[in-house]
Amino acid sequence: MSEINRVWRLRKRPIGDITNDVLSLEEESLPEPDTGECLFRLNYLSLDPTNRIWMSDMDQYMPPVALNDPMRGVVCGTVVKSKNAVFKEGDIVSGLGSWADYQIGTPETVSVMGDTGSVSIVDAFGTFALVGPTAYFGLLDITHPQAGETVVVSTAAGAVGSIVGQIAKIQGCHVVGLTGTDEKCRWITEDLGFDKAINYKTENISEALHQACPAGIDVYFDNVGGEILDACLKQMNLNGRISTCGLMSQYNAVGEVHGPKNYGMVLMQRLKIQGFIILDYMDRYPEAISALTQWMGEGRVKVRQDVVDGLENALETVKKLYSGANTGKLIIRVKDV
Amino acid sequence: MSEINRVWRLRKRPIGDITNDVLSLEEESLPEPDTGECLFRLNYLSLDPTNRIWMSDMDQYMPPVALNDPMRGVVCGTVVKSKNAVFKEGDIVSGLGSWADYQIGTPETVSVMGDTGSVSIVDAFGTFALVGPTAYFGLLDITHPQAGETVVVSTAAGAVGSIVGQIAKIQGCHVVGLTGTDEKCRWITEDLGFDKAINYKTENISEALHQACPAGIDVYFDNVGGEILDACLKQMNLNGRISTCGLMSQYNAVGEVHGPKNYGMVLMQRLKIQGFIILDYMDRYPEAISALTQWMGEGRVKVRQDVVDGLENALETVKKLYSGANTGKLIIRVKDV
Repeated sequence: MSEINRVWRLRKRPIGDITNDVLSLEEESLPEPDTGECLFRLNYLSLDPTNRIWMSDMDQYMPPVALNDPMRGVVCGTVVKSKNAVFKEGDIVSGLGSWADYQIGTPETVSVMGDTGSVSIVDAFGTFALVGPTAYFGLLDITHPQAGETVVVSTAAGAVGSIVGQIAKIQGCHVVGLTGTDEKCRWITEDLGFDKAINYKTENISEALHQACPAGIDVYFDNVGGEILDACLKQMNLNGRISTCGLMSQYNAVGEVHGPKNYGMVLMQRLKIQGFIILDYMDRYPEAISALTQWMGEGRVKVRQDVVDGLENALETVKKLYSGANTGKLIIRVKDV
Repeated sequence: MSEINRVWRLRKRPIGDITNDVLSLEEESLPEPDTGECLFRLNYLSLDPTNRIWMSDMDQYMPPVALNDPMRGVVCGTVVKSKNAVFKEGDIVSGLGSWADYQIGTPETVSVMGDTGSVSIVDAFGTFALVGPTAYFGLLDITHPQAGETVVVSTAAGAVGSIVGQIAKIQGCHVVGLTGTDEKCRWITEDLGFDKAINYKTENISEALHQACPAGIDVYFDNVGGEILDACLKQMNLNGRISTCGLMSQYNAVGEVHGPKNYGMVLMQRLKIQGFIILDYMDRYPEAISALTQWMGEGRVKVRQDVVDGLENALETVKKLYSGANTGKLIIRVKDV
């Protein structure tokens, strides 16, 4: 195995938007697995909003990537060499890895993907590795939406938001999504069945929410924080619940971040705000995957992968997440299984 | 009954601190109870941080007091005339009323106080009408503190905070209180059994919290919001809980309020922030009163009433709540039972 390994390494921590000098793509020799490890070749790399968090040294839920280390990512690959009985050559594995053609896996970082049935590997990886369970637990476990309640979702045409809205519809809720283009607004209402869509870039958010949520907001699934969170807080019903899945408006912010100025509504409306990280739900993944597989089979949850070819395009592509240029789950395809 | 009735009426909404022109004390004739109502004479008037909320037209949990209406308060009085079989002349009633010598009561606004046993009426009213159940449910029901966890309380020498800290000690927690004078710091540690006290006016809050909470913060009982909330957010442990009981730092604020700038910790540490209003727990009051009565009898919960004589002093006295000049429960005594 004399192949060259391409590895994206973190060279500096981003200030504001991600720039081209934050990561560099290096050509290196292949790593050699130790006892208990395997070597796998990358098939798909998941690009997620949390990548920006891992690059920075903000307070976060796991250590940030160290400077000059390979960039961390959620990955799917094929085992090419194994020194651990749980991995066989040719196994498809997924889990936490790095932005690199070849990398080391251990039972702590990756696991062998089960049979995905009629779902393709890329769809299974795209939906089940992170965003499907995130939508499932973040909505159902944190907010317990009831039939007839109003659920608002931000980044509604994104990978997580689009699934959240569809699960909320299955629960019998009135579902309103915020997204950034008229085309995405059409997609979530016409194709995904959201009741209302708001283009947050062209509409007055507060007024549009007021119109779209005549009975107020019971549940807000928050992917962004900032101005949309503030507008929602102002219109939350008594005993409303906010699931804090992401705060994308803050990740690229420079300087001091102001918190939600309508925070006082937490008291006045007896709100519950709860943050979660999908890694905490790892042991309950089968529940989410089973439900999602059924709903996808019935056509009640539709997923869309936004696939870009080439590991060399990862840096340019990850920026799309923060400008809202993607629709659905953003994935780098290095080599189809 | 030709007596004159003194009534505090709301004349303007406060901007910033409460000023003397916000309320005026009027001499009026006595109201006459209709069928289903009683007339009662005020014995004790509870002064509470929420009074400032009721005076203003901010978003809140019940309608604000209308301009020129009598100021709303939690009251305890003696029935002097009744046109409802549930009230007898001489009954001691408590509930929601107004800042006035004489006022009308209905079964919707006041109820007859039960036997208070060895506890005096003023202590029973001071502790059981509002602050004891607030501390009880706001701590136990919202945050579920576990033995060994660290609980931080703001306005720790206040009526609610002082009881919260003592209940947390009963649960086996490490308890840290923030208050505004060295004397209050001594009171909560030496007399009430808090493990540590922080004088937030003279100490660096973040550093002092760091020293007082070597294992981080699991539960923060928030009475104030603002800078102390931000400092706590930064030091919350994984799966920490914040009970939002009050946001006193905001009530008197002029202009735009900034939310907690460390709000991002909600996501990173998977925090739960939940607001509550004690009125939501009315049907569970007996549970709190029973527990508190037992703990008070055993000397494990000590309460202190800060009693000021004279309805005419209500306006001057309520200001003490916002300057931190009171210790324990602030009560106006109009006439002992």
